[in-house]
Amino acid sequence: MNQTRYEIGTEQLKKIDGVGGEKVIESLKEIAPDLGKYIIEFAFGDIYPREGLSLQERELITITSLLTAGGCEPQLDVHINGALNVGITPEKIIEAFIQCIPYTGFPKVLNAVNVAKHVFAAYEKTVG
Amino acid sequence: MNQTRYEIGTEQLKKIDGVGGEKVIESLKEIAPDLGKYIIEFAFGDIYPREGLSLQERELITITSLLTAGGCEPQLDVHINGALNVGITPEKIIEAFIQCIPYTGFPKVLNAVNVAKHVFAAYEKTVG
Amino acid sequence: MNQTRYEIGTEQLKKIDGVGGEKVIESLKEIAPDLGKYIIEFAFGDIYPREGLSLQERELITITSLLTAGGCEPQLDVHINGALNVGITPEKIIEAFIQCIPYTGFPKVLNAVNVAKHVFAAYEKTVG
Amino acid sequence: MNQTRYEIGTEQLKKIDGVGGEKVIESLKEIAPDLGKYIIEFAFGDIYPREGLSLQERELITITSLLTAGGCEPQLDVHINGALNVGITPEKIIEAFIQCIPYTGFPKVLNAVNVAKHVFAAYEKTVG
Amino acid sequence: MNQTRYEIGTEQLKKIDGVGGEKVIESLKEIAPDLGKYIIEFAFGDIYPREGLSLQERELITITSLLTAGGCEPQLDVHINGALNVGITPEKIIEAFIQCIPYTGFPKVLNAVNVAKHVFAAYEKTVG
Amino acid sequence: MNQTRYEIGTEQLKKIDGVGGEKVIESLKEIAPDLGKYIIEFAFGDIYPREGLSLQERELITITSLLTAGGCEPQLDVHINGALNVGITPEKIIEAFIQCIPYTGFPKVLNAVNVAKHVFAAYEKTVG
Repeated sequence: MNQTRYEIGTEQLKKIDGVGGEKVIESLKEIAPDLGKYIIEFAFGDIYPREGLSLQERELITITSLLTAGGCEPQLDVHINGALNVGITPEKIIEAFIQCIPYTGFPKVLNAVNVAKHVFAAYEKTVG
Repeated sequence: MNQTRYEIGTEQLKKIDGVGGEKVIESLKEIAPDLGKYIIEFAFGDIYPREGLSLQERELITITSLLTAGGCEPQLDVHINGALNVGITPEKIIEAFIQCIPYTGFPKVLNAVNVAKHVFAAYEKTVG
Repeated sequence: MNQTRYEIGTEQLKKIDGVGGEKVIESLKEIAPDLGKYIIEFAFGDIYPREGLSLQERELITITSLLTAGGCEPQLDVHINGALNVGITPEKIIEAFIQCIPYTGFPKVLNAVNVAKHVFAAYEKTVG
Repeated sequence: MNQTRYEIGTEQLKKIDGVGGEKVIESLKEIAPDLGKYIIEFAFGDIYPREGLSLQERELITITSLLTAGGCEPQLDVHINGALNVGITPEKIIEAFIQCIPYTGFPKVLNAVNVAKHVFAAYEKTVG
Repeated sequence: MNQTRYEIGTEQLKKIDGVGGEKVIESLKEIAPDLGKYIIEFAFGDIYPREGLSLQERELITITSLLTAGGCEPQLDVHINGALNVGITPEKIIEAFIQCIPYTGFPKVLNAVNVAKHVFAAYEKTVG
Repeated sequence: MNQTRYEIGTEQLKKIDGVGGEKVIESLKEIAPDLGKYIIEFAFGDIYPREGLSLQERELITITSLLTAGGCEPQLDVHINGALNVGITPEKIIEAFIQCIPYTGFPKVLNAVNVAKHVFAAYEKTVG
């Protein structure tokens, strides 16, 4: 039997963003439940399970896009966790941020590294 | 004997951005030669040859950052070519752009796909 | 029988963006057909037909967001047409842009007015 | 007798942004009083009282522009309050944010909804 | 007798942006005359004639802000001309753009240098 | 004997950003030491010591770029301190922010003034 987009998205969200992703959806339940639904159905149900890129490549792209957009520290937090969850090492995450310097300048890279610092420390406690 | 940063960068620029990259540097010769020097020394001499990411991953990150920044169509042109030069398929480039939709919205993705369309067509003529 | 999201979106796209919207989807057919599918299914199938805002309010919000993002002139072109199609007058479109000045500064407003100028002129020829 | 731009703006600011707006002006008194003066004279004296859009439409446009710009959470706070003050319902504010998803992506919409959550809770306490 | 803000602004606009500034105002006459009025009254009548910064410093700040915002090439064109008009040398304009590299990355600086290239060439013809 | 880029940059960083700059580099030591190295070598070793602009002009340009980019409050904090360190008065810093209003709108200027407020207060305690 076919899974719905919502079911596929829920699985993907759990696999990638783990607890952080579920907290985002949970936080929307009262105020904007449909926003949570679209994140699950569209971002995680339609886009993430597509072929053509590995999950690791998708997370590299996502954290690059969030760093470049700026002002998305809460989402960077969730997706740096996501990057770790799909097996990208902390060193490679930092290297991806360093690759952005020529294209975004230093300030946005500094902001992203600062988020990573907190995420890595918390992740180590949980996992380690 | 050690290569200078400028020599390393020139090699990298040629390997990645090919003719397009050289044209950018050439176009700066009269008006802002030091800008060209910094692009070669810093972006291509310091950042690109670092370990920790493959050249393909670096180009994926670069085109993602340029798409997200917006208004960087001339640089996207150069680096979509760069992505093709380091062996990323057109299909994978488009897939990277599609992965950005949830994080940037549709308009920036449409702009990037439009640049890719022209680059792919020109690339085929040259190579094919 | 229930319409699919794609069918709903196609109807909405036609109603709102008219020929301009169809051209965008058409232009994606070869290079990124799924991007066109998501625009129809998600933007026009899921979001536009929602209750809670009139179509005129949705277009006001859309052109405001495109003006503020910057670098989205092709999409502004399509959606200024869309705003006219759902019955917003040229005067009201300009007034919406003027309301943005304190929040975006003059340059982005000037760029949007410049797009509007061309759209209004072409629209008059077609309709008038 | 004619009101000055400053008098008109002060009235509008009070009507729209209420206590939040006055606090912004107050906070500028020592460090940048002219900035406060320009906000009152230009944004609220020149732009807001113009004809052609209702106050509700102006606030819809303003919160859309602030959401799209990103990094304007303090101003979003003031103007979500402003939107409530001129009679836009919380449901409609959220709906306006949802309309932005296709044009800005999810992260900026999540940030705006998060601000709204705090504003709605505080507003209820004051009014209710 | 006191000059009005409009009269002061018109003088400043002529002094700084010259023909380019007047063309912008002229281009708005049919479609959005009030936008032209606000540019003259607020930007050039209120802000530019303030004390505390020289006209050269104001133009340095303006071209820096336009470069950083991105997508404001038409306004950069007008204000690079403005910078030349108030006596900033082409070399200093380029140097200001180079100072932005660490804060904006290379692409926006490349776009601004490209605009400068055309402005400098046209300026030389007119003046020289 | 020639100084290395790193030595030149360290001196410049100390002169301009003082304790704030050193703290940024220090904070990167564990997580991304090369990012700190590039800030010193490229931003402060290559760009800042160039001729053609005074240090005061360079800091004016830097704080303008950070204000306009948005979301760079931590870097604005460091560089407003830097501006004071190279002898720009608080009044002139505020005046530079006011010059940005027509090009960025009010919200970004308000955010920058708010950072300045805290920096000026802390600076007075240290120096005065």
